[in-house]
Amino acid sequence: MAVGPDTLPELKPVDGFRIGIASAGIKKPGRRDVVLMEVCDGATVAGVFTKNAFCAAPVTLSKQYLASSATRYLLVNTGNANAGTGEQGMADAIRCCDAVAQLVGVEREAVLPFSTGVIGEPLPVDKIVAVLDDAKTDLNESNWLNAAHGIMTTDTRAKAACEQFVYQGQTVTLTGISKGAGMIMPNMATMLGYVATDARVAQPLLQQWLSQAADRSFNRITIDGDTSTNDSCILVATGRSGVSVEAENTELADLFLAALNRIMLNLAQAIVRDGEGATKFVEVRVEQAASVEEALQVAYTIAHSPLVKTALYASDPNWGRILACVGRAGLENLDLNALEIYLNDVCIVEKGGRAASYTEEQGQAVMDGEEILIHVVLKRGAVRESVWTTDLSTEYVHINADYRS
Amino acid sequence: MAVGPDTLPELKPVDGFRIGIASAGIKKPGRRDVVLMEVCDGATVAGVFTKNAFCAAPVTLSKQYLASSATRYLLVNTGNANAGTGEQGMADAIRCCDAVAQLVGVEREAVLPFSTGVIGEPLPVDKIVAVLDDAKTDLNESNWLNAAHGIMTTDTRAKAACEQFVYQGQTVTLTGISKGAGMIMPNMATMLGYVATDARVAQPLLQQWLSQAADRSFNRITIDGDTSTNDSCILVATGRSGVSVEAENTELADLFLAALNRIMLNLAQAIVRDGEGATKFVEVRVEQAASVEEALQVAYTIAHSPLVKTALYASDPNWGRILACVGRAGLENLDLNALEIYLNDVCIVEKGGRAASYTEEQGQAVMDGEEILIHVVLKRGAVRESVWTTDLSTEYVHINADYRS
Repeated sequence: MAVGPDTLPELKPVDGFRIGIASAGIKKPGRRDVVLMEVCDGATVAGVFTKNAFCAAPVTLSKQYLASSATRYLLVNTGNANAGTGEQGMADAIRCCDAVAQLVGVEREAVLPFSTGVIGEPLPVDKIVAVLDDAKTDLNESNWLNAAHGIMTTDTRAKAACEQFVYQGQTVTLTGISKGAGMIMPNMATMLGYVATDARVAQPLLQQWLSQAADRSFNRITIDGDTSTNDSCILVATGRSGVSVEAENTELADLFLAALNRIMLNLAQAIVRDGEGATKFVEVRVEQAASVEEALQVAYTIAHSPLVKTALYASDPNWGRILACVGRAGLENLDLNALEIYLNDVCIVEKGGRAASYTEEQGQAVMDGEEILIHVVLKRGAVRESVWTTDLSTEYVHINADYRS
Repeated sequence: MAVGPDTLPELKPVDGFRIGIASAGIKKPGRRDVVLMEVCDGATVAGVFTKNAFCAAPVTLSKQYLASSATRYLLVNTGNANAGTGEQGMADAIRCCDAVAQLVGVEREAVLPFSTGVIGEPLPVDKIVAVLDDAKTDLNESNWLNAAHGIMTTDTRAKAACEQFVYQGQTVTLTGISKGAGMIMPNMATMLGYVATDARVAQPLLQQWLSQAADRSFNRITIDGDTSTNDSCILVATGRSGVSVEAENTELADLFLAALNRIMLNLAQAIVRDGEGATKFVEVRVEQAASVEEALQVAYTIAHSPLVKTALYASDPNWGRILACVGRAGLENLDLNALEIYLNDVCIVEKGGRAASYTEEQGQAVMDGEEILIHVVLKRGAVRESVWTTDLSTEYVHINADYRS
């Protein structure tokens, strides 16, 4: 139950970035659930993290370590989120970092920990530590696809993307993986993303660009910047291509940023397409808004409406439910008669009611598709924003009612 | 599929308030779908209405008429909400009022129109007008239960309540009905409420008290004051008991307000109990908050979380999901280690993690019940607020995916 073809591009290795996978049996015996990533010496690393006040122990630690030391290893486990685990959780995350540090001969702070899975259960540290040597032995640059599988939780598909561009005869590569699921209100799902490039980018610029790219991708599938206990996205620049992106507003920076935005949006949209129980992939686009804030207010009100989402599931062109969402989005002085709403190219609302030209057949034709654009034209300004979401199916309820059993 | 016993108290007539029912066949042939209510001369009438910018034509008209003239009749139809119907919708609502006005010999503005049902479809005015004479003929003071049935949409039960108190040997009666459904995000459901009392209350005071009572009842089952296109609640004081409530902070006013708050809360909670697909009735209580705003922020974040609601449906004491909601509710300087969370009387979270005393068996025992209290103690102040909600079931999705078919 995921939307669109289940195909991945060739995942080009990134020189200076190696990945090893191991099976710790955290939730299921034999499942490959531990992923160790090695960053070459001299690389730069940037990260964005959840804003949830109850962020998980590994998030707290990763933020600290990233700010204080040169990162050399990323350790990810699935099956257990080490969230809501109090002081023990922090001690457990530190033990994992220590174990990696001793194994590979770096300081503890050079290891960033990441966990995803059930929250509130103690992390099985011994199981993880026991397979670190396996993961180290497995380290190689062609392990991206295995890593994409290794970080999945309720995901039904591996998520990965790759971008390349050529600058003055030299090829720059960006490769990445993500995991997600739980998309009715995605801020409760754990989203992880790891992208590596062989470009060289100074850390402050890398951080700025990652934050901007995340705002236009991972943060457009969440509400108001609210996120789950464990959300994290890491961008590594190894510099091994020899291409150095040194400033904004250059031809090279434009090429790099375009590739970065594409790969981030691709990884974020893959999470939506594989949303729990998803049968539709929906873009909600709000155009001619007076501000980013009001565009997102309208877009999220539609994207989170269970009545709109169940109508999408039923392939029902119930334009009244969309219209009611725009009405309750809280915009001041909204001119009902000016705005227009479209399903793909079909105008469904104009002049405060159903569009004169609209027929149920047109609406039905749009809704029968797997990919749907809900397009609101506010006629209040020049701002355009999109968010991406899915429908709400009985399958979603089944998955989340049964998750722990 | 509603929570709690399906019993109604005896619905005492209110002197000066008559009700007539008729079958217009708006959505289903034979269904009693038109309710006419007659208010005696000299009564006072107050109303609260949706804040949705796309409010329905009858809401716009009712607000205008209520402000300009003495109300004598309320006309309710179910099966069609006359919302998102543009100028034609307004003309249709006026035609209905005109027809009543001519039939009973009052001015058009003395008739308030109300509609509930599918939005975006033209109101079948002729069908409604054709049965007004039947409704008039049926007018009597003992028709409350029939009226409760007559205003239902996807409701599975009639909703009604009655309160009486004695003041200086005289009995004062309050009787009321409501309808709702669609409770996962109730601001999208149409809620209607009609309460009549034989007390005498001057209009400005009646309006003030209705607004206050609605804020603590109907508005505690919606989000941020956002409401659907058609929500309306009307309070009528006929004065026929001879008891006149003339000021605040008197013994009589206290008695009257207590009865008013009870009946309003009862009618609002009945809507939650009959939420679409509901199998649980849940109070989310936030205590020791620094302000009403932050108490409601936390309460609504929990009450609207699909992950919490699916866990409730599964009777799964998944305290991690509740904890994650508190974390993402957006409170500044939240002290994770100070707050506590309880399921009924069972402490599930303390010191930033699972309570030391908590056992899964205790949590399971609470979740197995039909009525559940999620109780968050913030330890930041002295404010306490509650909201009421339901679980999210597969049945909810079925109902809303099939509503128009």
